[in-house]
Amino acid sequence: MMSQSLLLVAHGSRRAASNEEVEALTDKMRQSAGDRFLSVRCAFLELAEPSIPDGIDQCITDGAKEVLVLPYFLSAGRHVSEDIPHEVEGRQTAHADVDIRILPYMGADSRIADLLLSTVG
Amino acid sequence: MMSQSLLLVAHGSRRAASNEEVEALTDKMRQSAGDRFLSVRCAFLELAEPSIPDGIDQCITDGAKEVLVLPYFLSAGRHVSEDIPHEVEGRQTAHADVDIRILPYMGADSRIADLLLSTVG
Repeated sequence: MMSQSLLLVAHGSRRAASNEEVEALTDKMRQSAGDRFLSVRCAFLELAEPSIPDGIDQCITDGAKEVLVLPYFLSAGRHVSEDIPHEVEGRQTAHADVDIRILPYMGADSRIADLLLSTVG
Repeated sequence: MMSQSLLLVAHGSRRAASNEEVEALTDKMRQSAGDRFLSVRCAFLELAEPSIPDGIDQCITDGAKEVLVLPYFLSAGRHVSEDIPHEVEGRQTAHADVDIRILPYMGADSRIADLLLSTVG
């Protein structure tokens, strides 16, 4: 599995603090993942860097043969259904030897209801 | 605790399907919660109904003496730090006998990194 990279993809914000929250989450995921992935990175659909194509290319430069794109989105809007696939498609075409796969977006996770409930004192 | 209501607050979208995802999540939370709350509802900051004030008033009509407002947001932007508190403040002033409390927004949950990692095959 060490030829896999994980790329957390967020929307991106004009607020630096919001983008930094995504970077901090990515750092935390990297630590939790141990040596499960070659690299764990983040990228942004818009308003922040790196872009999704740049993030994918960074993973490939890391040596990834498989890039797992994980959309950090709550709902299946246009960004999840069209924009992210479009960005990924371009890099998949450019790197036919690398498998770039989009995972289900975060909001699709059936455990979120229980996660939210358990935060309530 | 049966005098508590839980109000999940989402941004709201022009896409009906996104709002329906929030409603489905709310239904799931209501089922999971069993009889822990008097009611479990959702409300939207903008673009969808009910509004936050209307959602709070529905909880109070249910008989709630305490309304827990849970922001379904990934980052602590202006919506979380200013807009939601502003909406809540107006209803708190109108209902001095009810305790309306805003919980930490979803993205602040330290378990999200592990939740995301565990979705990756």
